[in-house]
Formats: sequence, C-alpha cells, structure tokens
Amino acid sequence: MMPVPLSLNRLLEHAGRLFPEQEIVSRLPDKSLRRHRYADFHRRARQLAAALKKLGLRKGDRVATLCWNHHAHLEAYFGIPAAGGVMHTLNLRLAPDELGWIAHHAHDRFLIVDDVLLPLYQRFAPHHRFERVIVFPFSGAPVTERDGDPHEGEPAIDDYERLLARAPADFHYADHHEDDPVAMCYTSGTTGKPKGVVYSHRSTVLHSLSCALPDAVNIAANDTVLPVTPMFHANSWGIPYAAVMVGARLVFPGPHLHPEDLLDLIQAEPPTLSLGVPTIWLGLIQAHEANPGRWKLPTAMRSMVGGAAVPEALIRQFAKHGVRVTQGWGMTETSPVGSLFLEKPELRGKLSDDEWFARKAMAGVPLALVEARIVGEQGVCDWNGSDVGELQVRGPYITGAYHDVPQDPDKFTADGWLRTGDVASIDAHGYIRIADRTKDLVKSGGEWISSVDLENAIMAHPGVAEAAVIAIAHRRWGERPLACVVRKPGATVTVESLRELLAGRFASWQLPDAFEFVDEIPRTSTGKFWKLKLRERFAEWRWPEGA
Amino acid sequence: MMPVPLSLNRLLEHAGRLFPEQEIVSRLPDKSLRRHRYADFHRRARQLAAALKKLGLRKGDRVATLCWNHHAHLEAYFGIPAAGGVMHTLNLRLAPDELGWIAHHAHDRFLIVDDVLLPLYQRFAPHHRFERVIVFPFSGAPVTERDGDPHEGEPAIDDYERLLARAPADFHYADHHEDDPVAMCYTSGTTGKPKGVVYSHRSTVLHSLSCALPDAVNIAANDTVLPVTPMFHANSWGIPYAAVMVGARLVFPGPHLHPEDLLDLIQAEPPTLSLGVPTIWLGLIQAHEANPGRWKLPTAMRSMVGGAAVPEALIRQFAKHGVRVTQGWGMTETSPVGSLFLEKPELRGKLSDDEWFARKAMAGVPLALVEARIVGEQGVCDWNGSDVGELQVRGPYITGAYHDVPQDPDKFTADGWLRTGDVASIDAHGYIRIADRTKDLVKSGGEWISSVDLENAIMAHPGVAEAAVIAIAHRRWGERPLACVVRKPGATVTVESLRELLAGRFASWQLPDAFEFVDEIPRTSTGKFWKLKLRERFAEWRWPEGA
Repeated sequence: MMPVPLSLNRLLEHAGRLFPEQEIVSRLPDKSLRRHRYADFHRRARQLAAALKKLGLRKGDRVATLCWNHHAHLEAYFGIPAAGGVMHTLNLRLAPDELGWIAHHAHDRFLIVDDVLLPLYQRFAPHHRFERVIVFPFSGAPVTERDGDPHEGEPAIDDYERLLARAPADFHYADHHEDDPVAMCYTSGTTGKPKGVVYSHRSTVLHSLSCALPDAVNIAANDTVLPVTPMFHANSWGIPYAAVMVGARLVFPGPHLHPEDLLDLIQAEPPTLSLGVPTIWLGLIQAHEANPGRWKLPTAMRSMVGGAAVPEALIRQFAKHGVRVTQGWGMTETSPVGSLFLEKPELRGKLSDDEWFARKAMAGVPLALVEARIVGEQGVCDWNGSDVGELQVRGPYITGAYHDVPQDPDKFTADGWLRTGDVASIDAHGYIRIADRTKDLVKSGGEWISSVDLENAIMAHPGVAEAAVIAIAHRRWGERPLACVVRKPGATVTVESLRELLAGRFASWQLPDAFEFVDEIPRTSTGKFWKLKLRERFAEWRWPEGA
Repeated sequence: MMPVPLSLNRLLEHAGRLFPEQEIVSRLPDKSLRRHRYADFHRRARQLAAALKKLGLRKGDRVATLCWNHHAHLEAYFGIPAAGGVMHTLNLRLAPDELGWIAHHAHDRFLIVDDVLLPLYQRFAPHHRFERVIVFPFSGAPVTERDGDPHEGEPAIDDYERLLARAPADFHYADHHEDDPVAMCYTSGTTGKPKGVVYSHRSTVLHSLSCALPDAVNIAANDTVLPVTPMFHANSWGIPYAAVMVGARLVFPGPHLHPEDLLDLIQAEPPTLSLGVPTIWLGLIQAHEANPGRWKLPTAMRSMVGGAAVPEALIRQFAKHGVRVTQGWGMTETSPVGSLFLEKPELRGKLSDDEWFARKAMAGVPLALVEARIVGEQGVCDWNGSDVGELQVRGPYITGAYHDVPQDPDKFTADGWLRTGDVASIDAHGYIRIADRTKDLVKSGGEWISSVDLENAIMAHPGVAEAAVIAIAHRRWGERPLACVVRKPGATVTVESLRELLAGRFASWQLPDAFEFVDEIPRTSTGKFWKLKLRERFAEWRWPEGA
C-alpha cells in the first residue's frame, strides 16, 4: 500500500474541495451571527499557515490559542498544523498564574488570542513571554499592531485579519510524518502540575474516523453540529476535526454559554448534534422549563454529553423533549472519546425503558480502536459487571506519555496501558460503569479542580496543620469542593482568612464553597490522606439551599 | 500517542468481546441455513490461527482460499492474519491454468478449499503444488484426511473442522507491524498476466473505518449485511471486515447466486444492506418482475452496487421497489472503495428527481482518505465536469505496487499516484463521471466516444436486457461504435427505435453506426462485460461499402 501518512491536511483539502458551500456560523460578542463557507475556511486556514511560516514558525513550534469557540479557532485547528506547528489550546477558565505556568512549560512561541480575552492575557503575560501575540478582532474593534521590543520583553502584536490578508499566496503544506504533533492540551492532574497531552496527525485522523462512525457520534455532511464543549477542552472532544472531515455544518456559540443564549442559538440555527458537559444541559433544561413555550428544542437533535457523569434524571428530562442524550467516557489523554452508549442489537426488545435509561446513564461501550480492561488487586478482571478495579485503556489515539515530564508508573503500566484513575466495572455486554470518579479530583461543571493544589495552598496558612479537599455532589455543578481543615493547636483560623489566602491563586470557580474544621484527616497505613474515609464521614453533608 | 499498530486482530477481539450474540448466517450447498454467533466466529478464527501455526505456518506465508461466501471463509479472513499469514483469495471463476499460474506466482503454501470446489482444485492442482490442502466440509460430506507424500508431490489433506478441533488452546496473536500483509488478491489486467495486490493490517483497518462512515456505506451493529459480491473479489469490497468491526449481522449466500435463490434468501433473512455487481441486481429485478407477488423486497434495504457502471434505468427500477442503490467506484488496487454516491447538502432541494438519478448513475465523490485527480494531455484538469482525462488516485489504502513484479510507469506515476486506466471527469461538486475504460473508448475522427454512456442509454430501452458498445476499425474515422444488444425475452426492439432513443441525447457523430442483436454479452469472472471477447467475436465484422 502507498506510504501515504494520515494527515489533517488531507481532511482540510477534502473539506475545501468537496464541501465549499457548507456553512460555518459563529456567534460574535455582540450576539450577531457571522457566516463563513468551507471555501472561506479552507482559504483562511491556509492563509494562517502561510502567515505563520512567514513569521518564522519552525516545525514543531507551539502556537497557543486563547479563544472562544468560533470560526477563527477552527482555522487555527487546521492552519497551525498545516504550517508544521502545534496548536496549544489554553483553558481560559484557569487562574492566570496557572495559564502562565502552562504556556511556559509548553514553550509556546506565538499566541492567538480573542480581543475580548486580552485582559486575561494581560494577567498571565508576566509569567510567560510570547514572541508574537496575534489578536483576533472577535468583537470587531480595531487592533493596533506593533513591533516587538526584545529589550523590554514586549511581544509583537499582529491583527489576525491583516495577517491573513498579507499572507503569501504560494503556500505549501509542511512535510510531516503522521506521528508528528498537531495539537496539545494540558490536563490538571491529581498531584503536581498540569500535564500536557500531545495529539498527532495520526491520532487525530483515527479519532475522527472512529467518532464519526454510525454507532459512535454518527456525523454526516447533512448534520449541523453545535460544539458547546470549549475548543480548549480536549479540542472540543475532537469533534470539530470529525465534522470537517465529513463536511458537516458547524455552529459555534462564541462566548455566549448562558442557558438563555444557547436556547436562542438552538432556536435560530437548529443543530442535529450538540456537545456539552451535563451542567450546560442541566441549565438549559431548567431555563426551558422556567419559560414554557419560549423556545422549542429541535426534535431531531442528538446531544453528546460527557466530561462528567450524566444523571439519569437529565437523560429522562431531555427524552421528554425528544432529544436523545448519548453519554460517553473519555479523558484529555484519550483524544478523548473512549466509549459511548450503544443500543446493542442483542438487548433490543429485551430491556424495559427503565433498564435502557439505566444503561444510558453508564459510560457506554469501548470504541473499536480502544482496548479497555479493569485491573483489580487480583489482576485483570472479567467483564461480569461486578468486579471493580481501575479502568485501563490502550489504543492508537491514547497518549502513552505526557509532554516533557518523566514517565510515571502511576500513569502508565509496564505493559503500555494508560491508568485512567477511574474505578469501574465492565459487564458482559461491554458496558462500562464508572464506580467512582477519579479519587482526588473535583469535577465542577465539566472542569477539573485539583484538590491537591487547594490543599497545598490551604496548608500554607500559618494556622493550618493539614487540610484535605473532597468533592461533594452538587445539583448544578455535578461536584463542588469542600475543604476539611485541621487547625494547629491553639491557632485561630477563620474561613475568611482562608478565602483571602486562596483568592489570589485560584480562579473563583475553583475555590472551595465550604470549609469544615475537623480534628484530624484520616490516613491510610502508608500515611496518605484516606479520602474515602473522609467522603464517608461527609456522605450526609448537604449544600445549603440555593447554593 | 501510544505506538499501537492498526490491526485486524483488534477488530476480531472487539467483535468477539462486544458482539458475542450477533449472528452469522451461511447458506449451505443444500440451501439450508447454518447459524453461528460472533462468539463462535471469534473462537473458530483463533482456532484456525492456532492450527495453522501448529502446521508450521511462518510469518508472511500465503494461505490460499478457494471458497464461496460463508462463515468459514470469514474465519479465514481473520484467522490467517491472526497467525501471521496472508490470505490469498482465489477466484473460482477463472480458468484452471490461470488459477494455477496465480497460486504459483503467489507461492501459496496452504490451501483452504470448499469440498464442493475440489473438482476445480483438481483441475489446477498440476500447475501448483500446495503443501497442505485443508478441506472445508461445506456440503457436510465427510473429508478423508491423509498425510502428504513429498516424493509423489502429494499434499497433505486436512479436514477443516477436525483441524480446528485439534487446535492448541494457548493461542497468541502473531506479532506484527501495521504495514504487514493480511491478504492478497490478483486482478486480471487487460494486458499480460494477472497482478497481485497486497493489503495490510493498516490499509484494511483504514478502509473499514472509511467505508463504515455514515456518508459512505453506513454500517452499524443493527445492520444485516448480505455480501453477494464474492469474497474472492477484492475481499467482497472489504465490507466483511467493516461489518465485523461494527458488529453487524452477516448473511452469506454460499454458492446460490441465481436470482430466484437470492430472492428467497432476501425474503427469509431480510438484509438492510446488500452488495453486488449490476448483473446480479439486473437478474434479480427481472426475476422479481417476472413473478409479481412471489417475493417482497425489503423496504429498508440499501444496495451497494459497483464493479461496473450501473445503468440509471436499473437504479430507477429499484427505487420503484423502495430499494436505494448506492453506486461506487473502485478497483482491486483501491481496497476497493474509492468513491461513493453522496447526496450532497448543497444540492439538496436544488435538483429534480431526474437530476438526482443522473447523479446516482455517476461514480460518486471521493472518500476522505482518497485523493483523486484527472490528468489529461495538458496535465492536471480542473474539477469542471467537462475536462476529461485519466482518473488517478492516491491514499493510504491504495496500492503503490504489485506483488513481485517490476514497477510499471503505465500503472503508477512518478509522483506516486495510481493510474487507474479509467477515463473520467470530475465536476465542481466532486462527482466523478467515468467516461470509459481507456481501452473501451471509441476514437472516431480524433474524438473520443464513451461506450459506457451509449450502453446506459440503450439499456434504458424497455425491451433491452443489456447492451455493450465496442469499437470497430473504420477506414475513414479510425474507429466507429458498434452496439451489441440483448433483447428481453419476448420483447421487440427495432434498430429504428434504438436510433430514435439515442438521437436526442447524443451528437450524431457519437451514435453507433450499427446494432447487432446477440443472445448474451460475454462476462468476465467478476461479472463485468468482457469486451475483449466481444471484440474477438466481431473481429471479422466489416462496415458496409461506402460507410
């Protein structure tokens, strides 16, 4: 067979050639809609690539993006790799010093930033100096270009649109192997610093093919795809790549993620497929029910939901409106779609509605290219639905290492599997049930909050002996952090002083909602915090009404 | 990303694990149906692999199959590569000496053969000595095993079923790279000897993913797939691999390919997807119309048709019965699906029914991993629907060479594209129109006339069963078209009515100068019009004096 590498460039060329008339709709900061065609996207992504090359981008250089979901971000998805660069999506919900640390660790050379996010950029600029900052005039306001000043450490500023207009016309794709990187995304781990996952041409094409299959996300040229999942969150689950591959229509919500805004957008540009974390849909359902008759949900819409466990009640609520919710499981490390709900033929006609809903609330079955196993204390478990252990996965679009950190046996097994940290079982039909979300993380509104980072910060308080942060179920956010704090003997520690301490170091949504003072943190025999015991102790704990 | 190779073994494991209850139905020589489950298939394919290894199969050894479409052939599809071997499908419609030549050229070491095909094997056995002949007791008759006799050149004979029963239990998949071969298939060229195309783990997995996509063949676990296309014909278009990957139900027709037999099978085990060359469907429609009410075509059935151009009239006839015909283009060299009909979003609501039918009779649009270009005498042509040249393709599941023959510049360009030998145009929407095989074009007065276009037009005549147009040497024009026409039983077709039919649709110089009524059009082993034979038959045909 021909030694033709799998390549994002092929998908871009295919899309531009086969679907030039297809539409890409972006919602701007002023809530108006901007419409592009794939022909524009194809031209502009290549212009971006040509411009980056002209600016001196070298093979493998990282180009960060700090952007909402819109057409220019999609251009970066394809344009940066087309130039041989690696797109590094920055999570705009992180605290400035964390953003700075991540950009610095990735050695990001250029930055593409929405003009409306420049204030955030300014806050982490001191932590990492980009060589160039390319400002996308998302709001329509003019961008003032300037040369950089190496002595002052000031980056050059480019206007994204003028940069594209100035791009040389004679663009050629950068040569590449299929294992060359195209994108990277940092994930907040349980311990230590965020870790970078690097995606390749190969992994991205294989993930796109796998996701687009009829029994996976089922994406076709006739679909209209609404990615609410941020494009900085595991590349919006990789779905924009798949959508471009098949020539689907895309609708991007821009910065407007409030339930009412999303309902307006869904009404105006009805999607057949939408993607988002449970929190988004929960808000959407509540707003919809609070204003009966104001919006109509499109009856043909499938909703891919993931990033955190989806409550069965939510799946049922959507079903009442004719919206099919498909739950999946994945991680930034798995590109991310590892498993998805499938209505398996052998169960058709054999399960009651209630049994189907229960299955829909599980984590689905592994996709064809993903090997999944459960490893308990006795080794690899049977698929019997009862043996519980760590979920481990392996496959060509699953990462085998983190960017620029030593290989950690807590993350990868000696025989080459990813240790997901999720505790799960798999039943005889292949359905994965996540028994326990990752032990030490709090998943709030689809975003990870590292309990360890909070604990370390709290323990920096002069009056604190030790502290452990656990996740407490929250009806709106899925989980929210509760901090358990042990005072030093005789010390005075107020909740206010703790809040003050953390406020400067974390984004507000990362802060614990409550603090409980306890006598001691239970410990395992090896001296580690035994959070299981702590969770048991606070099992009956409830957030105040209205929280 | 993990260095996990693409692998057929993964698809087999996935299918066995995820879809153990799924059914595989095979029609036996006595027309009864045998039912297996994927769990059986998974176990038996691995048993076959273990048995082959025990028999001394080495990595890369070729194992030939001479089999109809049935479950054991599917076991060979996966079991031979699982052992590290290469499955070489022999085309049972070829002449014995050609079969012998091919088996010899491929250095086939073992043979798996249906007991009902042993007489054919005996006829080419003198041309190539297999080390072992494994007889599948398809008819149920007992197989007499025997040891081989190296002195007499007699191969050992094994009973397929007993071989599996004796297989060691401790099977492990052979290590492999993804570029290692899994299967090979010889294609009969127009000139010279047949040429072998070798498929790899990688190409087969990529082709399976591409074909299963919603806008390609669209295969899901809930499908019932009926591969009428022989499993020795480009691996039944690669669809059995894709069907196994997604866990679809499979129905194999065995040796019973007569229209009545197929209609019985379709009635008994209604497929949602069937595959076959136009001839098969033509016969099926005719039998169905000859016996109104005897069979009901399943309304949910899609029919993938390829291997030769599908007349628009046939597509319309099927549509009357609610059966959607999807036409594709491909070659043994392209795994084989290169392009498929797609109802493109930008044309929705803009084309009349007639225009859609015209598009359905074209060769479809290229799949995402397939690059297509038209190369004329002036170089690469635009996609404008009018520039005609050779169709050339490139991609990771397209062969870059033939097995064990020197690289031929008539087959591959210097920049690495496959020269398909088809003359085509591509329009602005990406639809490929095959004007003709290079060798089948009629060159009249320096202008090309497409025999395919004329044939399709003639076959739209209500009294015509089939028609083939060939070039006859002409003293004035170089070549002129002669139409060979087969009437439907009992139908009256006059030359005048044919001329009238064509007059409105072709320029006068493109019209056939003569019509010959014949009893049948000779066909190749794969069911295509065998124009070489037709040209031989009319070699002495002369234009009248003065023409």
